[in-house]
Amino acid sequence: MEEAKGVVKHLLLAKFKDGTTPEKIEQLIKGYAGLVDQIEPMKAFHWGTDVSIENLHQGFTHVFESTFETREGIAQYVAHPVHVEFANVFLAHLDKVLVIDYTPTIVPH
Amino acid sequence: MEEAKGVVKHLLLAKFKDGTTPEKIEQLIKGYAGLVDQIEPMKAFHWGTDVSIENLHQGFTHVFESTFETREGIAQYVAHPVHVEFANVFLAHLDKVLVIDYTPTIVPH
Repeated sequence: MEEAKGVVKHLLLAKFKDGTTPEKIEQLIKGYAGLVDQIEPMKAFHWGTDVSIENLHQGFTHVFESTFETREGIAQYVAHPVHVEFANVFLAHLDKVLVIDYTPTIVPH
Repeated sequence: MEEAKGVVKHLLLAKFKDGTTPEKIEQLIKGYAGLVDQIEPMKAFHWGTDVSIENLHQGFTHVFESTFETREGIAQYVAHPVHVEFANVFLAHLDKVLVIDYTPTIVPH
């Protein structure tokens, strides 16, 4: 098995609190995406809403994936004042949150 | 915001049952990876173990990400006999499982 070089994925799964308006959610997502421009180790960001059909999503409705080059980069991101300020606002709107980081490994055929 | 064309991500988060040996886990991961060769709509696969530092991983230890081109492709995968047979074995070894599918959206800067 082979690790992808220089890639560590930071996944955040979320369920927003009932009553969080679509406008507020859009604003929070734009704020999250905007971290890419402000926190150097964060190299890429994408997000999406649950469209699964197996009913195993455990209530989570949104996925946010950020890409880093190293685990140290994630530690710098987590501690960065811009992240801390955003996270305080973002987390206050969440009913559920799950964060997991991993280095993607490809299994050769 | 712009959806990535023809990409739907299928994320599975897992925690194996206590007592599942490393050898069994490796065998299950190879089996999962092997689905790419047997189920046409499944286009790519990678996996990794939790290295997060925020203690928000809710007990999950493994991430498996499969890539499809359409939601219909995921439905075909879920119903495919090779997947059904593998899933029966795989799920029997899991203490916790979470599945969420999403179409990645990039937020322009």
